Amino acid sequence: MHITDTIIALATAQGISAIAVIRLSGENSIQLVQQVFHDKDLTKQESHTIHFGTIREGGRIIDEVLVSVFKAPNSFTQENSVEISCHGSPVIVKEIIKVLLQKGARLAEPGEFTKRAFLHGRFDLAQAEAVADLINSETDNARQAALNQMRGGFSKEINHLREELIHFASLIELELDFGEEDVEFAKRDDLKNLIVKIQSYLKALIDSFDAGNVIKNGVPTVIAGKPNAGKSTLLNTLLNEERAIVSDIPGTTRDAIEDEIILGGINFRFIDTAGLRETQDVIEAIGVERTRERMKKASLIIYLTDLSNTTLSEIETEEAHLMQLGIPYIKVGNKIDKADPSLIKSLEGHDFVFISASQKSNIQQLKDKILAVFHINTVKPGDVMVTNLRHHQSLTQTNEALQRVLDGLDTGVTGDFLAMDIRQSLHYLGKITGIITTEDLLENIFSKFCIGK
Amino acid sequence: MHITDTIIALATAQGISAIAVIRLSGENSIQLVQQVFHDKDLTKQESHTIHFGTIREGGRIIDEVLVSVFKAPNSFTQENSVEISCHGSPVIVKEIIKVLLQKGARLAEPGEFTKRAFLHGRFDLAQAEAVADLINSETDNARQAALNQMRGGFSKEINHLREELIHFASLIELELDFGEEDVEFAKRDDLKNLIVKIQSYLKALIDSFDAGNVIKNGVPTVIAGKPNAGKSTLLNTLLNEERAIVSDIPGTTRDAIEDEIILGGINFRFIDTAGLRETQDVIEAIGVERTRERMKKASLIIYLTDLSNTTLSEIETEEAHLMQLGIPYIKVGNKIDKADPSLIKSLEGHDFVFISASQKSNIQQLKDKILAVFHINTVKPGDVMVTNLRHHQSLTQTNEALQRVLDGLDTGVTGDFLAMDIRQSLHYLGKITGIITTEDLLENIFSKFCIGK
Repeated sequence: MHITDTIIALATAQGISAIAVIRLSGENSIQLVQQVFHDKDLTKQESHTIHFGTIREGGRIIDEVLVSVFKAPNSFTQENSVEISCHGSPVIVKEIIKVLLQKGARLAEPGEFTKRAFLHGRFDLAQAEAVADLINSETDNARQAALNQMRGGFSKEINHLREELIHFASLIELELDFGEEDVEFAKRDDLKNLIVKIQSYLKALIDSFDAGNVIKNGVPTVIAGKPNAGKSTLLNTLLNEERAIVSDIPGTTRDAIEDEIILGGINFRFIDTAGLRETQDVIEAIGVERTRERMKKASLIIYLTDLSNTTLSEIETEEAHLMQLGIPYIKVGNKIDKADPSLIKSLEGHDFVFISASQKSNIQQLKDKILAVFHINTVKPGDVMVTNLRHHQSLTQTNEALQRVLDGLDTGVTGDFLAMDIRQSLHYLGKITGIITTEDLLENIFSKFCIGK
Repeated sequence: MHITDTIIALATAQGISAIAVIRLSGENSIQLVQQVFHDKDLTKQESHTIHFGTIREGGRIIDEVLVSVFKAPNSFTQENSVEISCHGSPVIVKEIIKVLLQKGARLAEPGEFTKRAFLHGRFDLAQAEAVADLINSETDNARQAALNQMRGGFSKEINHLREELIHFASLIELELDFGEEDVEFAKRDDLKNLIVKIQSYLKALIDSFDAGNVIKNGVPTVIAGKPNAGKSTLLNTLLNEERAIVSDIPGTTRDAIEDEIILGGINFRFIDTAGLRETQDVIEAIGVERTRERMKKASLIIYLTDLSNTTLSEIETEEAHLMQLGIPYIKVGNKIDKADPSLIKSLEGHDFVFISASQKSNIQQLKDKILAVFHINTVKPGDVMVTNLRHHQSLTQTNEALQRVLDGLDTGVTGDFLAMDIRQSLHYLGKITGIITTEDLLENIFSKFCIGK
């Protein structure tokens, strides 16, 4: 495969800013920029050097810029590449891109720079996917998980598993060559032990997806409870505390997402809480399909009870309803300052967190409890964790194929069947790192990237 | 003045993107980044080179980055500078800035990089101000005007005027040294001719502000007319045509500003049109203070008459009201398709543009008319134009001081009075390029910059 065209895109966020960076990649990208760059011959410059000059169209200067030159294969895409750092005005960015389009560049598709890096073998597919995860990481944990994957920790594990399987597949296929002679190059007991070992690796990876998914995508959370239980007050208390500790480094606050807090490096997104705040009586309306649907979207329910205005028997009814939902929940007793002490005493052993949302008391205890539900520690450098649904599916399919091998060994099927199932498991593993791939799969993966990456 | 601290800021727009650039400047900026950068010794690298590596905090990798090294005086600020190009996640940007703050950098004030460039003499104040104008330019004309100013065309003119004045001021001050002897080194007629010549230069610059201001800030425009004249329809027709031709290069569309169209490189901003659309009868309500205020903010009124439903005498009354406002206006006859032909005939000579807003007919003719009101041609490279209110004020003050010199010459005042007024005019000229400056003035100018520039 030989890619020859030059792609161009704005690589920085859009908007008015000090500087904006326009990126080009392709065999001819340096010559192409040279056609509009004055003051120096870029084609004669070393890789990884920066040059001040002007971008011109005809005699007219569009902007004074810094141009960075990267020569193949020492660039992100492993192609010749250029980065133009111009003044951060959308008008200037548009003019510069326009004049370079006229010279023969074409607008890059989303993720096309990373796709080229993948196609040129700079990294495998799982690593390429981690680039997008890294950019979209919303918490430090998500960042670390993506970085570990991008730096190849996950790919290394997968490749290690593949190598062991390939070894055995080869031995079994060798047996097939000796067809009639009934030899066993691959000892069946060794194969069995290997597969059991690999399955236990796989299981650990597959199991890590629950935590990985929570780290990458956050926890959809619902605050529920009867009217006047204090749902809005609690939500506001949680959000305000969060906002107060948000870093004030300019440019590092994401576009405000309402109803989202980050606790212990995990993003808790309060889903559809506006709707729930209006719902007349959530727990009693549980039979209502709409409420049920809303609840089903949640991975955590914070159920609030107004202790100043609820009886023990009502609480017990609510608990029964909650348990039926089959979703992790936390029972929170609100308005503790106005509650009957005897009620509180009788709730011992009911695993309540007692708070006063309006007086902001015991909020930290509630936060600790929320975190405890997910048992997630900080992601450390080198931790291997599955955060990608596609990887999770491929791992599960690999595991199933290996289970067929095990079953085949138990029932004593012939080598060719064993080989087929081992090859099948290799196929699924290969899809993760992109050894096995299709244009559709690549399209699907890279179209989710941002433009310019 | 010796600046020693290292400043840091995000230089690209905030938001999720392929890459983000963090900029540092200061004597120790390279050593400072070296403390968290691995894989290479940045302090030993050439200026204008780019280095791949990781930013680390303790043993933990925050991100894989490209670091650009600029050595004093060959950087934008003329100090040692570093640009860190990281993955465009606000979480990553925050982490990197945080760790560098811990190492001793401090967050940059708005415009502080440009301020340092000015303080180190890289360019004068008018040029520094043009950097902000360039970033904020919303049309190609505004970009060109700012670029001309940034590249020093305007400063050159000012400096030329100053030199000529300084020469004469020196001669007159020399006369004062000879106090009693009544010599005239500076010939009064020559001085007079010079000042008249300078004043005609100044006047041209001062006059260019009207066009310069329109190019830089756009034209506040009101669409007015009786209810059902078709004001909203016309506005939507103008806006939709505009949107349809907006470039589709990703990342080059500014945040959508409602009610703004760019014609011939000039930005027409429709002010408060939502309010006007609701106003019951603008022209009859002209006595109403609120409407009057709104109109006063406009630099152009597009006055719409429903020709299918208005008599000639009503039209003449409206015209009389419009003229009283003293603001440029364009009379537009709408619903031409439903109008009585005899009414149209009788309006010949009334300078109407006849359109049908709903059928989108003659809209181009209206656009041409709108542009014709402002007589602005495209700004060309090298055009010198005043776009800055501060410069306009200083030029006007210079001109006034020179007028006092002229008046003094006519009334035969003594050399010391002439010298004082000439020095005063030099003072005002010097404020433009920053030869004369105060901390307050600088504060006021640079605080309007974006962070990171």
